Amino acid sequence: MDSDFGIERELSHLQKLRSLYQPELPPCLQGTTVRVEFGDATTAADPSCAHIISRSFPHTYGQPLAHFLRATANVQDAQIITDHPSIRVGIVFCGRQSPGGHNVIWGLLEALKIHNPDSILLGFLGGSEGLFAQKTLQITDDVLATYKNQGGYDMLGRTKDQIRTTEQVNAALAACKALKLDGLIIVGGVTSNSDAAYLAETFAQAKCPTKVVGVPVTLNGDLKNQFVETNVGFDTICKVNSQLISNVCTDALSAEKYYYFIRLMGRKTSHVALECTLQSHPNMVILAEEVAASKLTLFDITKQACDAVQARAEQDKYHGVILLPEGLIESIPEVYALLKEIHVLLREGVSADNISSQLSPWASALFEFLPPFIRRELLLYPESDDSAQLSQIETEKLLAFLVEAEMNKRLKEGTYKGKKFNAICHFFGYQARGSLPSKFDCDYAYVLGHVCYHVLAAGLNGYMATLTNLKNPVNKWRCGAAPITAMMSVRRFGHGPGAESIGKPALHPAAVDLKGKAYKVLRQNAGKFLMDDVYRNPGPLQFDGPGADTKAVSLCVEDQDYMGRIKQLQEYLEKVRTIVKPGCSQDVLKAALSAMSSVTEILSVLSCSGNAPF
Amino acid sequence: MDSDFGIERELSHLQKLRSLYQPELPPCLQGTTVRVEFGDATTAADPSCAHIISRSFPHTYGQPLAHFLRATANVQDAQIITDHPSIRVGIVFCGRQSPGGHNVIWGLLEALKIHNPDSILLGFLGGSEGLFAQKTLQITDDVLATYKNQGGYDMLGRTKDQIRTTEQVNAALAACKALKLDGLIIVGGVTSNSDAAYLAETFAQAKCPTKVVGVPVTLNGDLKNQFVETNVGFDTICKVNSQLISNVCTDALSAEKYYYFIRLMGRKTSHVALECTLQSHPNMVILAEEVAASKLTLFDITKQACDAVQARAEQDKYHGVILLPEGLIESIPEVYALLKEIHVLLREGVSADNISSQLSPWASALFEFLPPFIRRELLLYPESDDSAQLSQIETEKLLAFLVEAEMNKRLKEGTYKGKKFNAICHFFGYQARGSLPSKFDCDYAYVLGHVCYHVLAAGLNGYMATLTNLKNPVNKWRCGAAPITAMMSVRRFGHGPGAESIGKPALHPAAVDLKGKAYKVLRQNAGKFLMDDVYRNPGPLQFDGPGADTKAVSLCVEDQDYMGRIKQLQEYLEKVRTIVKPGCSQDVLKAALSAMSSVTEILSVLSCSGNAPF
Repeated sequence: MDSDFGIERELSHLQKLRSLYQPELPPCLQGTTVRVEFGDATTAADPSCAHIISRSFPHTYGQPLAHFLRATANVQDAQIITDHPSIRVGIVFCGRQSPGGHNVIWGLLEALKIHNPDSILLGFLGGSEGLFAQKTLQITDDVLATYKNQGGYDMLGRTKDQIRTTEQVNAALAACKALKLDGLIIVGGVTSNSDAAYLAETFAQAKCPTKVVGVPVTLNGDLKNQFVETNVGFDTICKVNSQLISNVCTDALSAEKYYYFIRLMGRKTSHVALECTLQSHPNMVILAEEVAASKLTLFDITKQACDAVQARAEQDKYHGVILLPEGLIESIPEVYALLKEIHVLLREGVSADNISSQLSPWASALFEFLPPFIRRELLLYPESDDSAQLSQIETEKLLAFLVEAEMNKRLKEGTYKGKKFNAICHFFGYQARGSLPSKFDCDYAYVLGHVCYHVLAAGLNGYMATLTNLKNPVNKWRCGAAPITAMMSVRRFGHGPGAESIGKPALHPAAVDLKGKAYKVLRQNAGKFLMDDVYRNPGPLQFDGPGADTKAVSLCVEDQDYMGRIKQLQEYLEKVRTIVKPGCSQDVLKAALSAMSSVTEILSVLSCSGNAPF
Repeated sequence: MDSDFGIERELSHLQKLRSLYQPELPPCLQGTTVRVEFGDATTAADPSCAHIISRSFPHTYGQPLAHFLRATANVQDAQIITDHPSIRVGIVFCGRQSPGGHNVIWGLLEALKIHNPDSILLGFLGGSEGLFAQKTLQITDDVLATYKNQGGYDMLGRTKDQIRTTEQVNAALAACKALKLDGLIIVGGVTSNSDAAYLAETFAQAKCPTKVVGVPVTLNGDLKNQFVETNVGFDTICKVNSQLISNVCTDALSAEKYYYFIRLMGRKTSHVALECTLQSHPNMVILAEEVAASKLTLFDITKQACDAVQARAEQDKYHGVILLPEGLIESIPEVYALLKEIHVLLREGVSADNISSQLSPWASALFEFLPPFIRRELLLYPESDDSAQLSQIETEKLLAFLVEAEMNKRLKEGTYKGKKFNAICHFFGYQARGSLPSKFDCDYAYVLGHVCYHVLAAGLNGYMATLTNLKNPVNKWRCGAAPITAMMSVRRFGHGPGAESIGKPALHPAAVDLKGKAYKVLRQNAGKFLMDDVYRNPGPLQFDGPGADTKAVSLCVEDQDYMGRIKQLQEYLEKVRTIVKPGCSQDVLKAALSAMSSVTEILSVLSCSGNAPF
């Protein structure tokens, strides 16, 4: 198996051309001298969690933000790193593959070699298993040649999703020590970056010199917070899926006889479904977050879809396209409760065949109501993160089944007078995940790879490489790093009145913000999308010519430049300090004091009210 | 419903750019003067069918080939058409949508208007139903604006597949008379073009002045013969599907734990599956034509796949990608026999629930052996062309199911010692059919639209517009038209010893040629594809820059320039005539006579042996 990793391979014409594409670097990373500015010590977004997180991460909590600036940047307290000894770095792909992953390796290798040609980059083969077993491949430009700007994780492979148990953490520690690594780069999503934070803490405690750096790479787009605007792979996945959704929309409108139910990959959250809707304008999307917020039952959702079908039939339209995120099934309260019961029984070792009889009466009634194919899929053993096997549960077929049954009922009762309802179901996931990455993802991953080097050069541990201001061109991107602990939160689980248990601090998938601008755009257009068939085809991913530089709608509409705004605030504070210096008038001082006292009071109140991220 | 056809709509950035793309015309069609050369009278590919076809088409059989040449071309007997009265033409989308269809309309409109601005083009709304009901939309450049170079058939829509019954043919005749049409253009595949031929004959007989012209537009790529090299839509479908297949290959290689079984659209024949294999290099493809030729049973196919899985496991490979054409299920002899029994019973009105008990013992045994989901799908009512509902039968799931069962059995028996076999199934069809057409399909359809005009201007009836030499750039394409009857054949059905019935003359889907060059390329590489994971990603469809002009592999490897070779032959004959003129030496005459007598003898023998196309 391993012998095949990193082998050179035959590329298609387009793949070859892509392998020659050279992403640009933001000005601050050009050349060999980079200035690092450290910001204030970080906290956690939810102050009520800060204490718990700080206790779990005594060595790595509360570290400052880092910004990378041009050597010539005129910033107080920023330091230029001039010492670049040769270092040894390991990199590992964790979790599910996401387009662009290879470019993180490329960017990192390039930065390493520019600063010291003797530095070594080792890729772990087969993901975390390769890390534990110390199976490596030394990355060179030759190895990379046919993997630059290419999709998949096949240069190194990936297997297990976790670095979590004591044995696993110890194996990672042993590997880093044995291989004398100065740095370990973990490429992955929410789970893998949580693991990276714990690993960093363990390494610090064990006085292991290896610094751990995380990179936000996940097609789900759910590793989103104040420091991280989007993830490597999300742009590509949304573009490839939107192309296919749009093709299906065109097909629906041409044949005029089918409703297409399309389920999209993206795990628990609905970022992919939202973005694809904004790109393709299908008739309807049902976001998991909406269902959870409104506590919609399976019957409510079915009714919504049926009412839509009926309203369209009244306009003589018998076709349509409905999108569902794969996480929808878990967001439906009664199904979630049923899944929880099933998972408890499965973990107790009850065999799938016997579960039905051991469910609570209520759960059993729901279970028996569902069609057999869904029952089988709900009985699958849960994933390592406790969620159901979302990619295996055909929610689109379930909804199509329920809608058909309800439309037939309405037809019989005479409340619906249109033509027979016909559905075709699709799951779009695997066919997008291995795609050639979009230009945006190529650039984003490549620059993140460079940033990883500078994080290590600055001696930082437990950080995530970050880029912000991404909706602007590459030369405006801001490069930095944030402690992973600053992105963590703690989940509380209620067990009846008064009783509560607390989860371990972790990164949690960021839900679609139902108050955010992207969702607002969706809601404003939902009526038109539903009735008017304003389908829009963004077309296949383009690499050349016009269209190649399009970015995700949700990335562009949100005001995400958190770091930019922190900077702006600091400028205000600096201005006040400059104006109010010893020697200024009493009036100026009085006005400043009064204004600042009211500002601080407002902010204290706001900070305490606790804005939990999920 | 109708009010939505042809409405202007919002296009994405890329769609807008595509709508501005202007395909090129071959030199012979540039300007306003085109020369028409008529070739010899045509015959049928299978001489044994010629008599039957000529009896069915007394008015339209045996017409000559037409070639369109530059006005300045130096060709004997070619005539320049100088009279271009204003004419009225109708156009109708028949059968399943195929990318590029809209461009036929565009090319036709342009040619009409160039030659006489008063000419009128009417599009029938909702396919053949619109034709029968005389529902039309006058096509103008404004109507076309947002449909140029766009996918789908949504500008006009399509509903029924047929113009076959006496009522339908009469309705079409009445429509053409009422609308005073000089020409009717039928856009479609094998079935629709057969209908076009019958319509042309009926019109000729009824002395209706409307000339009927067919255009080969079908994503199946199965309308292939001496005159037609490929069909509009095939290139796009293969490219979009190959992109997705390649993405899945990359995914398989990254995760290393799944076998993907992918079923592809394409009806009875396997052209799409073959072309996609040549573009993407998946591990395995099972062509319907191979299965039919070798009379492989379901068990043979399962065994083949299992042996492949086992051979790969011995190299520690637990992933793979296997392609199946949707027509595979009908090509398996025992399943075909079962389907025939089921269809007979369904047509007799036996309800699906009762069919199992009325099958012959042998068919019943097979039926009961199959998993329930496939049983349900086999019981679906057959299509109008007598085939099963191929897009609804999940052959990929059936094969994955059988392979899994067999691998588990081998594991238990100890003959297989590898890891557990895991399959994921996909059907790629609807998500490709509505795609933006590739540059090739845009050009091909647009030029065919122009050719349609010249066919009408030449007063031809019952012809198909044709372009050949397509593997070369547009300026080398040859424009012509061939009588549809010359592409027809007759199917014979055996009913026991001596008894035989004969079908109606029709176009039949051309099977993949197992002696052809494209198939040879596949066979030469099959071993490498199977074991070495030489996956290749042609990438998403490009419209700009390098990669945009790639053509289908199977189009490029085959020697298809039939018309070019007919021309070459005529040049030889002409040369002989020039050399052997009264006054030449006795020796020359003797040599010529002897050589030509042996040539004619060989050709007579060859022609009589009957090279039936299917």
